[in-house]
Amino acid sequence: MSKCESSLDVDLGDRSYPIFIGEGLHADAAYYRKYAPGTQVMVVTNETVAPLYLDKTLQALAGYELRSCILPDGEAFKTLDVLNQVYTALLEARFTRKCTLVALGGGVIGDMTGFAAATYQRGVHFIQVPTTLLSQVDSSVGGKTGVNHRLGKNMIGAFYQPRLVLADTATLNTLDERQFSSGLAEVIKYGLIVDAEFFDWLEEKMDALLARDPRCLAYAIQRSCRCKADVVEADEKEAGQRALLNLGHTFGHAIETGMGYGEWLHGEAVAAGMCMAADLSRRLGWLSSEAFERIRALIERARLPTAPPAELSSDRFLELMAVDKKVLDGRLRLVLLKEIGQSLVTEAFEHGKLKETLTRYGR
Amino acid sequence: MSKCESSLDVDLGDRSYPIFIGEGLHADAAYYRKYAPGTQVMVVTNETVAPLYLDKTLQALAGYELRSCILPDGEAFKTLDVLNQVYTALLEARFTRKCTLVALGGGVIGDMTGFAAATYQRGVHFIQVPTTLLSQVDSSVGGKTGVNHRLGKNMIGAFYQPRLVLADTATLNTLDERQFSSGLAEVIKYGLIVDAEFFDWLEEKMDALLARDPRCLAYAIQRSCRCKADVVEADEKEAGQRALLNLGHTFGHAIETGMGYGEWLHGEAVAAGMCMAADLSRRLGWLSSEAFERIRALIERARLPTAPPAELSSDRFLELMAVDKKVLDGRLRLVLLKEIGQSLVTEAFEHGKLKETLTRYGR
Repeated sequence: MSKCESSLDVDLGDRSYPIFIGEGLHADAAYYRKYAPGTQVMVVTNETVAPLYLDKTLQALAGYELRSCILPDGEAFKTLDVLNQVYTALLEARFTRKCTLVALGGGVIGDMTGFAAATYQRGVHFIQVPTTLLSQVDSSVGGKTGVNHRLGKNMIGAFYQPRLVLADTATLNTLDERQFSSGLAEVIKYGLIVDAEFFDWLEEKMDALLARDPRCLAYAIQRSCRCKADVVEADEKEAGQRALLNLGHTFGHAIETGMGYGEWLHGEAVAAGMCMAADLSRRLGWLSSEAFERIRALIERARLPTAPPAELSSDRFLELMAVDKKVLDGRLRLVLLKEIGQSLVTEAFEHGKLKETLTRYGR
Repeated sequence: MSKCESSLDVDLGDRSYPIFIGEGLHADAAYYRKYAPGTQVMVVTNETVAPLYLDKTLQALAGYELRSCILPDGEAFKTLDVLNQVYTALLEARFTRKCTLVALGGGVIGDMTGFAAATYQRGVHFIQVPTTLLSQVDSSVGGKTGVNHRLGKNMIGAFYQPRLVLADTATLNTLDERQFSSGLAEVIKYGLIVDAEFFDWLEEKMDALLARDPRCLAYAIQRSCRCKADVVEADEKEAGQRALLNLGHTFGHAIETGMGYGEWLHGEAVAAGMCMAADLSRRLGWLSSEAFERIRALIERARLPTAPPAELSSDRFLELMAVDKKVLDGRLRLVLLKEIGQSLVTEAFEHGKLKETLTRYGR
């Protein structure tokens, strides 16, 4: 039997939906029945996740006209071409606009399946079953879907909300250490941007989290999703405050693009990016050295990188950051920290200080 | 100077927008300035339209950071691959999410540019400058955007509203007869589905329309857009009544797919499809023979086909119709006529009668 430890509702008017968190949820038929209307369901997953969780998911969906679509694993396959395989599978199965797509996997599967759901016949139902910590705390809330373009990450996409998210903590047991830590980067991020108390809790519980204590995990996931939902509910289309969620991401995307997708995990790049944002905030005189050190130390304890790869020069960094979506009308906007739990989005910072941060870390 | 003959507002809450109709509007800077915020504009057009209208459009947009993207012309190029060329052009130009895309061309350009706008960085501004009669009366209202898949037409897409539509009647003078008549098919459709008085007016003014009388054209475009807007405003996401707009389209899409995209123009296929829907409505005893004959005669006067191509057998027709989006849970739904100006969406019809209609026309 599955065990729902906690849940929350993401409140977006007629696009609201629940997130359930607990052990074994991915195999629980009751949730699917309630949230997948119609008769046709396609589970989209990848070659790594399929052997672990696809069978039980399909069993839980028995009774539907059922298909699965197994994609290659990895950020390198988050492309229009691979997306087209999903469309082809849907059309070959003659799935109608009343069908439901279930994303079973991490962030790449969630983003691609969500975008397929947003665009197949101009929109079909979508259920997310994130199987990594990163996707449970990040992709579960926010409705961002899409694919990469060779000239930039997540450059093609849509905002599209799921009807249901099932965050199954049992699926985290099969994550390797790097993947697990990558998820912790986003968990730490929520503490940094809006929730100092949660940051304190993370300092206290980091060892239990690393030991994958199920109750600690469920709490961290629920609180992370709540932080993100609060930000997103206030600003669904990313006009303003939602950009706080990008702490570390402008630097991080530059690292991911500069190193080639897949070399650095997303959370690893964000972790290094958060250290860079904290470093810049400190140089601007906004963040204390003590707070900077607490941030760096917690990220290190989470077994995450605290600096970018040395081979990215500061000039290359600036070039890579210039194509990031966070650049408005040519001006570089960054998320920076006033203190732990207080962040802001700004383009009003001394660019010389940014250069100092990049030079400190770059070759 | 441009001359705005008439206008209407499409009322969709915070996604409302105006349509202006008149001569020379595509070259009028004032409209663009008002509706393209930000500093970057890309005009997307095709190889046929570019030599005719691109220069003046670009002149009207002087002052913006300006790019154009010229695609190959035709339904055969309404694909993900060609769409990707637009993304590439946007990324190479480093266009941000504050940019505006202007669609200068017919339905294919409007659909693709709209989908690019819906999905580039998860959504940028969109202005439509439809240059064919078909796109002025059809794509101007409804927010349907997308591309074809080899297994079906318009199977990939999104609902996305423009901020402004400029329907320039002067651009219709360069349309060849087939293209022009293809647009008239949709004009006639509005009369058939919701506006008997407009159908009467069309019977009276068909010769003037064929002579491309500018004032008659502006009136026909405005009234067509008004009809469509009334239906769409009541039902933006196509849950119910919006499906009335598909009169002739399920048959028509089968013709287009069966013959290969591009062989039959969309409006030609819809015209034949409307005759088939009217024929079926007559066989079901819902439409009088006199009304059927008026419909057939008006479509013929508009120089449009009144029957499908003989090489499509009734079995092939049924097969092609089965992948159409209008099939819900495997049941075939059709738009049929009670009388001229009164239509309904139904799956409650004798399928034997459908077979009779298909056999009458098929080989």
